[in-house]
Formats: sequence, structure tokens, C-alpha cells
Amino acid sequence: MGISKVVIALGGNALQEPGTPATAEAQLDVVRRTCEHLADINFKGYEMAIVHGNGPQVGRIALSQEIASKIDSGLPAMPIDVCGAMSQGYIGYQIQQCLRDAIRNRNRNVPVVTILTQVVVSEKDEAFKNPSKPIGPFFSEEEARALATEKGYVMKEDAGRGWRRMVASPAPMWITELDSIKRLWDSTIVVTGGGGGIPVTENMDGSLKGVAAVVDKDLVAELLAEEIGVDFLLILTEVDRVCVNFNRPDQRELSHITVAEAIKYLNEGHFAPGSMLPKVTAAIKFARRFPGKKAIITSLFKAVDALEGRAGTVISMA
Amino acid sequence: MGISKVVIALGGNALQEPGTPATAEAQLDVVRRTCEHLADINFKGYEMAIVHGNGPQVGRIALSQEIASKIDSGLPAMPIDVCGAMSQGYIGYQIQQCLRDAIRNRNRNVPVVTILTQVVVSEKDEAFKNPSKPIGPFFSEEEARALATEKGYVMKEDAGRGWRRMVASPAPMWITELDSIKRLWDSTIVVTGGGGGIPVTENMDGSLKGVAAVVDKDLVAELLAEEIGVDFLLILTEVDRVCVNFNRPDQRELSHITVAEAIKYLNEGHFAPGSMLPKVTAAIKFARRFPGKKAIITSLFKAVDALEGRAGTVISMA
Repeated sequence: MGISKVVIALGGNALQEPGTPATAEAQLDVVRRTCEHLADINFKGYEMAIVHGNGPQVGRIALSQEIASKIDSGLPAMPIDVCGAMSQGYIGYQIQQCLRDAIRNRNRNVPVVTILTQVVVSEKDEAFKNPSKPIGPFFSEEEARALATEKGYVMKEDAGRGWRRMVASPAPMWITELDSIKRLWDSTIVVTGGGGGIPVTENMDGSLKGVAAVVDKDLVAELLAEEIGVDFLLILTEVDRVCVNFNRPDQRELSHITVAEAIKYLNEGHFAPGSMLPKVTAAIKFARRFPGKKAIITSLFKAVDALEGRAGTVISMA
Repeated sequence: MGISKVVIALGGNALQEPGTPATAEAQLDVVRRTCEHLADINFKGYEMAIVHGNGPQVGRIALSQEIASKIDSGLPAMPIDVCGAMSQGYIGYQIQQCLRDAIRNRNRNVPVVTILTQVVVSEKDEAFKNPSKPIGPFFSEEEARALATEKGYVMKEDAGRGWRRMVASPAPMWITELDSIKRLWDSTIVVTGGGGGIPVTENMDGSLKGVAAVVDKDLVAELLAEEIGVDFLLILTEVDRVCVNFNRPDQRELSHITVAEAIKYLNEGHFAPGSMLPKVTAAIKFARRFPGKKAIITSLFKAVDALEGRAGTVISMA
């Protein structure tokens, strides 16, 4: 058998509790609790890498800079790729610090490091034709129209709350830092692909260029899981199991579904876009790529049980 | 002989040109030019790691958040350790992207990755008794006194420009992520210790805690150089050579000095605090630790020549 390998995708609830202030200190408390669960997985003997989200964090970074830049011209707002890099710094630092401590508390000594991660996307990706991922602050209609004219942003009205910039969510093609992640894999827990990675496109000469886009973090976790050839893709979210008829009287929890069943439920519209849909999509992709291996969707609290077959929703070919 | 190893410390001029706007785009242009020189070093066959400064960047990050937090309570300002982590994300991303491209342009394929880096300092460090490193925005005297009372900050008047928060600049004791840097060393260029690393102290139980401090980046580069046991510590700055009587009619460039001579000049006050002094101090420390090896202080433009003995100021035991 050997040691089992797992790529873990952390949802937003692993970083911030709803209703708590958006301070670094409050986030550190949540991250510390999250890392107890992650350390439990490591303690069970799994080799692992961690991919995390960054939606609220990168939104606040962008908004802070937008506000400050209007008041002080010496503080220009950074583009989205740089905001993403900053959020990898912020969140990665907290995870690597807390996870190291949690592992040491279990009398182990496993290094934890964050590798800043760029993810290459195609500028020909269909997603760029219809940017649909809201990012950053809300604007008035007037401000939105000015931004659209001045900077060429795609601005859309967002659920009655104001206007927001929309960016594309293209598919991840490759992880620029993969080689280093592989080299560290068997000795080290690597935090990587934060927020889906910093999106870059490849120029004609092979050089890279940051782009305004957001890559789905579950799909990046899946890509990493494929490249490493791990045994499990573990997607952690708020619920213990994927449901059909979610939040309806006939809601039903799924403990094990085949890829065929998952596709059927997906086509029937059981999974919400921007929430369960990308997770199930990533799980299907992994299960299909490696018949015999398992993608698991569950909560942080059930993670160890799920890896041992006692909890969560398993998605596999057969 | 084998392959020569070098730790490179980059000064602020490697990231921003005086008088250019503080945009990410302008910085990227400077970083791209800097990386041409770094790629030349790599092309000559040196194994290398890169440590960079972050003073202006972390100052702007802190100031942006300070401004935004006053306008929107949902955007709390982050503590200094987190601002430092963000600056490692910002700068590390640009360096790893541009350096990869510059190396590929030389028909090589050497991975470049940024590892978020924590540096452990002692809370008993004397520096904490007299915080002397200004950080972040300027305040009025009234604001400064309020901050001192409310948050316990040490606030000092800074050269007639207003009041600023002062933090300690303690000595680096160890680099938390050293093990991973070592593992990657012979295959990969690692960007690490950005801004002197994220300063942390060790709690009684061995866990880590971010602190409001700034570790000198040249001293962190020196610590890394010691730990790896490199052949050269290369400190890049604005001038081609260290001078005595700097900016005076009897100014004299130094091409090679012994540790004893360096200490003599240092004690005579030839080197400005916060500028050449920490560089010479780091160089002395390295040269003393490894008799027979060389610390070099020079400019980005002379870096290759200096490694080959044709430029720069060499500091060595004999």
C-alpha cells in the first residue's frame, strides 16, 4: 500500500466564521481550529497538500486599496493578480504557522510551507467571453459606467446590491510551481494554489503575464491531485455530505455516488453554481481520471472519518 | 570545486526606481530589469537564493489599510506581521514570474519559487526595549498620542515629517522554513526571507506568534548564507563599492577589506545606520563565520563581475 496521499481543498468556512469581524486576529482563531483537523489527518499518516479559498480576503484587499487610492494618490490600487498574491501571503502565513504548531502538539515534526502559486490559463478560454465572477467592491451605476469606459472593466449589477466588476473564471491548465511542490511532497506539507492560484496567461514567447481572472480553487486542487497522482481528493466545505433536493423536505444525503450518478444529479440541477457545483465537478474530474481512487466531499469535522470510509460523500467511477 | 553557491540580498532599488509611481505595473518593470541581472548570475552556473527588502511596499500596504479602516469598519487594518506576509506575496510573485522568464530566455529551465518565510526572534532581544524602526503612515501628534494610549504603540516624531509608529528590529535567530529551502536548494531558486521575514516569537510551548517588529533583511540573508554554507554572501545596493568618507572630497572606494579593517571603519562611523551599516555588519558576520569565503557588497549591475573578482567590495577574514 504505502502511505496514502491526499490533496485537501479548504472552503471559506475554514478561514472565517460568519458574523465574526474580518480582523486578522479573528481569522487566526478560525485557522487555528481548522489546523487541528488538518493535523489530525497528518497524524493518521497521510501525506498532504492544502489548497485554500480567498474570496472574502481578496475582496477586502482590493476594496481597501480602492478606497485608499482615492484619498492618497501615492497609494495606487494593485491589480487583481497582485491582490491574489497578497491574499496567498496573508492566508498561507496563518495556515503554515498554525498547522506547524498543531502538528508539533501531536509530537511530530513535519515542515509546513506556503509556495506562492501561479496557475496558467488560456486567454482563448471561453470564460473570457463572458466574465461572470464578481470581484472586489460595489460601485454605483455611475461609477461603474465610468470604470467600464476608463479601464475597460466588465461591470454588472449584482443582485440589487450595486455594481461590481466581473472577471472570467477560466479553467486551470497547469501550475507553474508544480516541480517544487513535487520535490517537497514526501517530506513537507505544502500550502499551494491559494484562491485558485494567481492567474497568468502565457505570452507568445512563453513568458507569463498576470491576468484579471479568478480560477476556481476546487479545480486547482483537482489539477494538483491529478499531477501528484494522490489517492484522495478531499474537498472540505460546510456540510458533512452532498445532498440532492438540498434544503427541501425531500432532501437526501449521499454517502457514495458513481461518476454517472453525479453527472445525472448535476444535470438535474441539484448543485448550486458557485457552491456545490464546482466541488462536484472537480470530484467527477478526479474520479474519472483515476478509476479506483476516490474524491470525497465532506466537512472539516468529518474529514478523518471520511478518509477512513465512515463519513462524507464519496464519488468514484464504480 | 563544485558549483558555487550564493545568497543574494536585494536592496530597495531592485524593486522601485526613485520618482516612479508606486504602481504594481511600474514595480514589475523594475523587477523585470533586476531579474535580467539575477538570471545572468544563474547563467554563470551559481546556485542561488534571493532575499529582498519590503520597506516602501509594506509601508503602503499598512497605510492603505489604515485609511480604509477609518472609512469602512468592515475593513480592519491588518497587524504588521500580516502586512509583511502580504508584501512577501506581492514582491515574491513578481520576482518569481520575471526571473523564470529571464532564465528561460537564456535557454535554461530552473524553477523559481517564493516560500513564505517566518523568522524567529527573541522577545528578550534588547531591541524591544528601544523600538527604533519607523513603520507605516505618519500621524499628527494628537493621533499619535491616542494610538499610544489605545494600542500601546511606541510613537516617535520622525525628522519633522510627523509621528510614526516605531517597532523593534531584533536579531534573527532562525528561519522556520529553512528545512524546505535546503531541500529545494540544488534544483530551484528560492525567494525567501522577504522584508527580513515575518517576525515571530516562540511561546513557552514552542508555538509561534507574529510580532510587531522588522528584522533587517541583510542579517536574514546572512543567517541563510550561514545555514546553507554558501560560498558568497552577495549584498546588492545602489553603489558599486563601499566607500569611506562617503560623499566627501576625500571619499575612497574600497575594493577589498579584511574583517579587522571593516570593524575599524565601522567604529569610525563611516557607514550610515539603516543604509550601509547593516550591510557591512552582515558582511562582517559572514566573513568571520567562514574564513576563506567572501562577502561582497556591490550594485546589481556589477554583480557578475564582483562574483568573478573584478568589481565590488570584498570583505573577508584575511
